[in-house]
Amino acid sequence: MNPADLCSYADVFAACRQRIAPYIHCTPVMCSRQIDELAGAMLSMKCENFQRMGAFKMRGAVNALLQLTPEQQQRGVVTHSSGNFAQALALAASSVGTRATIVMPRDAPEVKKNAVRGYGGTIVECEPIVEARQAATDRIVAETGATFIHPSDDLQVILGQGTAVAELLEQTPELDCVVTPVGGGGLVAGAAIAAALHARAMGRPCPVYGGEPANVDDAFRSLKEGSIQENPPGANTIADGLKTYLGDVNFPIIQQGVRRIITVSEDQIVSAMRQIWQFMKLVVEPSAAVALAAVFADPETFAGKRVGLVLSGGNVDLDSLPFAKR
Amino acid sequence: MNPADLCSYADVFAACRQRIAPYIHCTPVMCSRQIDELAGAMLSMKCENFQRMGAFKMRGAVNALLQLTPEQQQRGVVTHSSGNFAQALALAASSVGTRATIVMPRDAPEVKKNAVRGYGGTIVECEPIVEARQAATDRIVAETGATFIHPSDDLQVILGQGTAVAELLEQTPELDCVVTPVGGGGLVAGAAIAAALHARAMGRPCPVYGGEPANVDDAFRSLKEGSIQENPPGANTIADGLKTYLGDVNFPIIQQGVRRIITVSEDQIVSAMRQIWQFMKLVVEPSAAVALAAVFADPETFAGKRVGLVLSGGNVDLDSLPFAKR
Repeated sequence: MNPADLCSYADVFAACRQRIAPYIHCTPVMCSRQIDELAGAMLSMKCENFQRMGAFKMRGAVNALLQLTPEQQQRGVVTHSSGNFAQALALAASSVGTRATIVMPRDAPEVKKNAVRGYGGTIVECEPIVEARQAATDRIVAETGATFIHPSDDLQVILGQGTAVAELLEQTPELDCVVTPVGGGGLVAGAAIAAALHARAMGRPCPVYGGEPANVDDAFRSLKEGSIQENPPGANTIADGLKTYLGDVNFPIIQQGVRRIITVSEDQIVSAMRQIWQFMKLVVEPSAAVALAAVFADPETFAGKRVGLVLSGGNVDLDSLPFAKR
Repeated sequence: MNPADLCSYADVFAACRQRIAPYIHCTPVMCSRQIDELAGAMLSMKCENFQRMGAFKMRGAVNALLQLTPEQQQRGVVTHSSGNFAQALALAASSVGTRATIVMPRDAPEVKKNAVRGYGGTIVECEPIVEARQAATDRIVAETGATFIHPSDDLQVILGQGTAVAELLEQTPELDCVVTPVGGGGLVAGAAIAAALHARAMGRPCPVYGGEPANVDDAFRSLKEGSIQENPPGANTIADGLKTYLGDVNFPIIQQGVRRIITVSEDQIVSAMRQIWQFMKLVVEPSAAVALAAVFADPETFAGKRVGLVLSGGNVDLDSLPFAKR
């Protein structure tokens, strides 16, 4: 595949959609008159908070697993993640009949570990540093023959995540553009492929924008610099699923197919999240609100437009909500 | 209409459904594998949190307004409510082209007053006692010729609320029974009519149960005593929409068509609400969780059954959630 020609993915993308369909929900697209009035645009929001295990990550996990040979499936898979991809790979593995080992930092929240176990995953704990994470993963691959699946920098994962946007564009074909949150880059790269194929089919452009927390603006800087940038140690955001950075597989796709990254403040994220909860009655996680926050942060780009947004997930800790009174 | 024969409402109910259809959403029915496993039953939840203004009350308000003569519509309507019916009547009035005056206690939350104003309603404040509320309402009727619409003890309101259950039974025809929250009795009485008509059409029973907070168990006691009971002064519940009591119009319908009222504790309400937020990613208000709480409180009645529940609304104060850390 040539990353410079996103339409060259048409066949593998179509195969991916067909392959994962039995394992995922086609989630609804919802609108809010009140949010549209505030945004001055017509927003169509793809409710991946209703996806299995509560986030779009299920799509990519399933697709990656279904691409393995029977021998590979028998030996299982391994990933490192303390977020939604951990749960997604665990549930996907149970669903397709293989097993997943998840390397998680020792200090990951108990609620996330329990969720992984609840979906049938095996947890291996490591020290909360990148080197320990990699060492533990390498050891499991060496000892068990498990296949490593990267949470976002894997073409099959990218294609799987892109199916969320392909569905959105089928459910609302008249969209002028699409906005997704950007973390590790899997979703926004998949969105770029889906939008390029849609644009070709419709005969008009459908640009893709990424929303990213200003606190961890590595993707914004990566596009500007033309090379993958990381975040300074300790950089933090309430949208904790977006702290990761781009990779060699998704970066060229993003360079080719993402028009711009829009950065948003922590306050803008919480405010957008609150609007989704209040007006749409949807439980979404902070990362999911980043796309809406980007629309509010850049009114000139979106005014009067029909904008598709991916509400990426709904796995939020109800015991520590940002808008609860203390 | 003979309250003892709920099927005698068939024609007026069909007319009501047709009349209000352009003004309301047909809300989706959602399920949760996780909640089903916890409940040991198959639950189908009617998402009236997605209804216009965020609650089923929109249905009854619209139906009552559309039954007025042009002269009555011109003089407007009035009600007393500090809850969802206040907002519903305000939005319904704007939608059908008349105007609503809402008598609200002076100490009602500012957020609720603002919501009524946002929907175009006029607020008249009164002292927070029943007598003042009635006096203010009577005065407005006398001075303006407005028509008084009771929030729950009005046949047109009851029929309107019942359309939520009629839709649910069309969307999921195989249900064994239906559970709704009980406050003023409009919804559960409408549910009784809808379920009786469904049972006749299907040729098998479809009992209706009511869920009620034990702290304000007036409906439970009313059915037991055979006469309308009230709650002691100061009785309170987190499900604040359910503090009202039954009336002369809905009580005989409820006596005829509701099999049993199941009372639930405050902890059971919060626990059910949390499950809906966590597993279904839906923002629902405490009152909406009372029906699910009733299913958990009475497992013998519901085990293995296909149960329809009305998630009555989603208008919750995000600043004071019961499961937020303090």
